Amino acid sequence: MELYFMGTNAGVPSLERNVTSLALRLFDERRSFWLFDCGEGTQHQILRSPLKLSKLEKIFITHLHGDHLFGLPGLISSRAYQGGNTPLTLYGPPGLKQYITTSLNISESRIDYRLDIVEHEGGKLFEDETFCIESELLDHRIASYGYRVIEKDLPGKLDSVILASHGIKPGPLYGKLKRGESVEAPDGVTITPDEVLGRPKQGRIVTILGDTRPCQAVISLSEGADAMVHESTFLDELAQTAYDYHHSTAKQAAEAAKAAGAKQLYLTHFSSRYKSEEQLHRLLVEAKQTFANAELAREHVIYPVVRADGEE
Amino acid sequence: MELYFMGTNAGVPSLERNVTSLALRLFDERRSFWLFDCGEGTQHQILRSPLKLSKLEKIFITHLHGDHLFGLPGLISSRAYQGGNTPLTLYGPPGLKQYITTSLNISESRIDYRLDIVEHEGGKLFEDETFCIESELLDHRIASYGYRVIEKDLPGKLDSVILASHGIKPGPLYGKLKRGESVEAPDGVTITPDEVLGRPKQGRIVTILGDTRPCQAVISLSEGADAMVHESTFLDELAQTAYDYHHSTAKQAAEAAKAAGAKQLYLTHFSSRYKSEEQLHRLLVEAKQTFANAELAREHVIYPVVRADGEE
Repeated sequence: MELYFMGTNAGVPSLERNVTSLALRLFDERRSFWLFDCGEGTQHQILRSPLKLSKLEKIFITHLHGDHLFGLPGLISSRAYQGGNTPLTLYGPPGLKQYITTSLNISESRIDYRLDIVEHEGGKLFEDETFCIESELLDHRIASYGYRVIEKDLPGKLDSVILASHGIKPGPLYGKLKRGESVEAPDGVTITPDEVLGRPKQGRIVTILGDTRPCQAVISLSEGADAMVHESTFLDELAQTAYDYHHSTAKQAAEAAKAAGAKQLYLTHFSSRYKSEEQLHRLLVEAKQTFANAELAREHVIYPVVRADGEE
Repeated sequence: MELYFMGTNAGVPSLERNVTSLALRLFDERRSFWLFDCGEGTQHQILRSPLKLSKLEKIFITHLHGDHLFGLPGLISSRAYQGGNTPLTLYGPPGLKQYITTSLNISESRIDYRLDIVEHEGGKLFEDETFCIESELLDHRIASYGYRVIEKDLPGKLDSVILASHGIKPGPLYGKLKRGESVEAPDGVTITPDEVLGRPKQGRIVTILGDTRPCQAVISLSEGADAMVHESTFLDELAQTAYDYHHSTAKQAAEAAKAAGAKQLYLTHFSSRYKSEEQLHRLLVEAKQTFANAELAREHVIYPVVRADGEE
């Protein structure tokens, strides 16, 4: 589970940074990756990344501003062109479907894979055996959502030495024990899961937030998150500008991370005015004064999401 | 008058080349530039070019396939963001308006300048004192148009020495002579334009064609063109593929340039399969066998449109 940023600039692309898009790589977990937002040029960034469009499984759009959205039609079309044939599901606010349908129809784009578009207004969006995704409305000029990606706990490891001593080899009895059931061993002894099952591997939480002013939903979505991605459009000296444009400062992002008890904060969505490394560094310093585990999101860098116990 | 290519790849962006867009720089002629097609990432290419979005005056879309179209909403929005406040006019096939309107409405993009969208099905699209633009339907899978940009002749220079000898200085009498009227000089002599007006500077013709199979409209639009931009998706060895996908080969582009009596041919819209310089060179060689003044369009290079008499 890794974060891979492909766009960290606010509003418009710059020579240094692209408009918003972030990949959550889930190769170990489900041999796929998910995208959060898809600004123009995301497919170009993917060409320069270790990601392959054919492995893209889900796209979550935080809100419908162009710098988070306008890369979708091209990416969807190119995925078909490049032989992507597995289903793709988009999640986003109402209006997403009309935008995609109009773009694909007018361009007569041929999409040979199954494309589902799920319009939502928050709540639980998806759940399977390994993940659950929840969403809540934030506070922006237009409806903007945050996403909480909850990885489910993985069962602990079975003690194969003890099991072998009772004549149990990997197979159906292993499965039963992992599911929490007791089994009778070939030697007649009843084995309970407690005796042979290690501590479960705790699932991780990744929170990815759309553009927002500080609000309660940011904190509830980020509660205890192992990784939290929060916009940081301005420095505190432009707090009024941040408020007027419905954005947050680096300091506000840090305050939210602290209030939520997040473990790691990634700052992103930097105003174009912050071009140089010195200027970006000021954003980082400001956040770290409140929340030490803050980091600036850099494009084309792989950030592992570390478990609370230190395992990746 | 100069051509500046920002996308020369067919269908999808590649690591080497972007999807289609071409600027016609008209700084001497009207202090602006025009765009022909606007694939995704065109605004990113403009950031890396000597062009400024605020100087963009018109955009002509050849057809509504995504690789010629999907950069428009972002470019239009960013132009507003970057302080472009002069009117912008888009020309393109029916459907363009719905695409743009939907994209801008759903993203709640604020465009502070006047944006006109002219949907057309060929014919004369625009005429003023310096230029006239004509368009014709080509032969592609969907409606695709070519554009013929006709620069009007510029009046010749007045002979200021002769005029001064009759007591005429720059002013209203100059204007009359330039408009072809005779004037009476302060010394009583009648001066006719023939006596003092040099040869007019001949206007240039630039033809920019959308995706197409070979067809008569390509030739009529390119008749005597000083510069002709023609797609060249495949080599002749893939002529059947070109036909099946409604495209042209390098050879067919050259044949059209020859039949039209064009002076310079630029090949563009290369299939992604042609990656290396050697492969691209094969396209060029194939075209040159039929039409010597053929050239491969390169991104981020300025190509002056030379007048028939050699003047730029």
